[in-house]
Amino acid sequence: MKGNAIVGQSGGPTAAINSSLAGVYTTAKERGAGKVFGMLHGIQGLLEEKYVDLSEHIKNDLDVELLKRTPSAYLGSCRYKLPEIFENEEIYQKIFDILDKLDVKYFFYIGGNDSMDTIKKLYDYSMVTGRGKDVSFIGVPKTIDNDLAVTDHTPGFGSAAKYIGTSVKEIIRDSKCIEYPNGLVTIVEIMGRNAGWLTGAAALSRGEDCKGPDMIFLPEIPFDMDFFMKKTQELLEREGSVVVCLSEGVKLKDGRYVCELSTEGVDYVDSFGHKQLTGTAAFLCSHVASELGCKTRSVEFSTLQRAGSHIASRVDIQEAFQVGGAAVKAADEGDNGKMVILKRVSDDPYQCSTDLYDVHKIANDEKVVPTEWIDVKNANVTEKFISYVKPLIQADVPAVMVDGIPRHLYNREL
Amino acid sequence: MKGNAIVGQSGGPTAAINSSLAGVYTTAKERGAGKVFGMLHGIQGLLEEKYVDLSEHIKNDLDVELLKRTPSAYLGSCRYKLPEIFENEEIYQKIFDILDKLDVKYFFYIGGNDSMDTIKKLYDYSMVTGRGKDVSFIGVPKTIDNDLAVTDHTPGFGSAAKYIGTSVKEIIRDSKCIEYPNGLVTIVEIMGRNAGWLTGAAALSRGEDCKGPDMIFLPEIPFDMDFFMKKTQELLEREGSVVVCLSEGVKLKDGRYVCELSTEGVDYVDSFGHKQLTGTAAFLCSHVASELGCKTRSVEFSTLQRAGSHIASRVDIQEAFQVGGAAVKAADEGDNGKMVILKRVSDDPYQCSTDLYDVHKIANDEKVVPTEWIDVKNANVTEKFISYVKPLIQADVPAVMVDGIPRHLYNREL
Repeated sequence: MKGNAIVGQSGGPTAAINSSLAGVYTTAKERGAGKVFGMLHGIQGLLEEKYVDLSEHIKNDLDVELLKRTPSAYLGSCRYKLPEIFENEEIYQKIFDILDKLDVKYFFYIGGNDSMDTIKKLYDYSMVTGRGKDVSFIGVPKTIDNDLAVTDHTPGFGSAAKYIGTSVKEIIRDSKCIEYPNGLVTIVEIMGRNAGWLTGAAALSRGEDCKGPDMIFLPEIPFDMDFFMKKTQELLEREGSVVVCLSEGVKLKDGRYVCELSTEGVDYVDSFGHKQLTGTAAFLCSHVASELGCKTRSVEFSTLQRAGSHIASRVDIQEAFQVGGAAVKAADEGDNGKMVILKRVSDDPYQCSTDLYDVHKIANDEKVVPTEWIDVKNANVTEKFISYVKPLIQADVPAVMVDGIPRHLYNREL
Repeated sequence: MKGNAIVGQSGGPTAAINSSLAGVYTTAKERGAGKVFGMLHGIQGLLEEKYVDLSEHIKNDLDVELLKRTPSAYLGSCRYKLPEIFENEEIYQKIFDILDKLDVKYFFYIGGNDSMDTIKKLYDYSMVTGRGKDVSFIGVPKTIDNDLAVTDHTPGFGSAAKYIGTSVKEIIRDSKCIEYPNGLVTIVEIMGRNAGWLTGAAALSRGEDCKGPDMIFLPEIPFDMDFFMKKTQELLEREGSVVVCLSEGVKLKDGRYVCELSTEGVDYVDSFGHKQLTGTAAFLCSHVASELGCKTRSVEFSTLQRAGSHIASRVDIQEAFQVGGAAVKAADEGDNGKMVILKRVSDDPYQCSTDLYDVHKIANDEKVVPTEWIDVKNANVTEKFISYVKPLIQADVPAVMVDGIPRHLYNREL
């Protein structure tokens, strides 16, 4: 490699995004890059010239291993949408001035849909204006939501799915423990605005020793309140304890989010215009309690599901590292304006390789769960869904325990 | 041992209560007990003659290991308070009829304060009436709350504390990731009605790689809303992201629970007359958001904290097994009307032994966090608190992973 590299993290954090950072850093160093800079808080921080020299942070192989086991974005993240080039060219000039100043020839951005939009715009700007024509812009996929198009799956998803499968199983176990006079309904709310990948992962709790959730509702299928209430009542009478897993993004037939039925439904709209959803489980719990007279309990995994490094999937952490490395290799070999993707070679035995894809064709497309993988009648996912997800949660990344608590790599700059 | 034994689980489940069950079962078998019965759903199930022969459930050493790793009460639990003897003698006659029928000479009950009340009453009844005089009634301590008197600590607490320390650390990491224009306040709600042991365990997240929560509020100290708001604002201005951990049971100076300030505060009163608390964090989040204009996020660990077997403490699981075994030994040696307790021999190196204590002196006393272990001014716990808790979260119990998810021992009878 000739010259310096810079890497940033963007969007919601995951348990695997730092493994991709480790993959970018170690591969760039191995391939002879000069300095490897890290943007603090992504492109937003870069615009304020906030960055670090990563070699001052990742000092040895143990640091690399700790980084792989550290949840959240080590460099800090942002939710910053670049304006269209014609709207504000100055911002682009500023970014390229900084890249020039740092002699950056390789630009890596680890993120989801919105972050790939950044790669696309920077690449387009360099093509249109000729500025930074010698800089490679490569995207590294990441999102717990698994909603990125083209790639078979997204690093970060496997670890979140493993956390969810494990925690839902523990919740089911707990919920069968005490019998309540009129039964107990537990409703678990799982992340996922439009795509039900994470919520479907609740079915991973099913096995020889666990029936799995009694119902699973994904946002891909309109939520039918009558069906839900009727089935809940039937299950209550038969089982006594009912566990329902649903996506925060479940919507009614008329397009409203279920949580909008509650007064506290939507509490925040982010800079991409996405409504921040909350309280779907809590709302349905109070509805069920008042209609059916049973005890209810709502559980929201909240940020726990994306930060659960202590139960990360080794397949996921490994692949996150690999896509980081593959991005560096691609840039070094002259690719530009592309995102690394994962291609599943085989399901059983599971095999997966990396490839590259034009970032223009990826940005802002959302991959949802195929309808044929959803068992609407039984409010569940099908075996096809399970065989797709199962390979991604395999094997463990034992935490480095210090004094009984997992050790992370700590960035004092945040 | 001469004759049969019976064992029940009672009260809120934990990640360690099944390890005590394993300890009772294996020790009773080793000491030559006949059958070892398990009450389904504790004394409440026994009254309906619901019980199993445990040898049909725990068939080999692998089952014992799986049982130790299974959260929630394997036999099912209950929240059933025996009436006073003079109020309803028939219930006692029924219980002793069943014990006679099963030829039970050893009665073990694994539970917290309310469950020790059951041991006490059954023992008293047998003393007063002479019925079942040859039956030993021994209590085995359990509760995540760590609020049982006399015993140094309670099995179940260490694993919950480890879950909380680990998860709070992951939440803190996550919360520093994205900078919000007016800052972010994360409020984590932790179990504990009157005792702050679990909430204090959030401080275990502190270490060389993590500052720990910015504020910790225990129920032992009246919650001062002005102090909380003032300190939150200061921290917001200084840090940008603030993480607060508080007990579900924090109370105002006038004795009301903080969650009672919200309309949805108390949603349930159990059969012991305890208010079931919920929504403290959610209420404070909406208060903070409207007063300080920042983004807020509430996280409730809910049942996750008591069912988190996948990150159990080996010290805890081991001690839970030992108190089960010690109960059997005591009964076999003729003790009666007693509870096994844990006595800390030394802090560093940590050493702990078991002992016995008269159950009359234990029941219904709640052990709270000593005031001198609480740093009121800084809204935190002191080093003394930390050195008390730290030994209890040490070392791990690696889950038996099957297909990427921890395997449990499954009771089809529940």
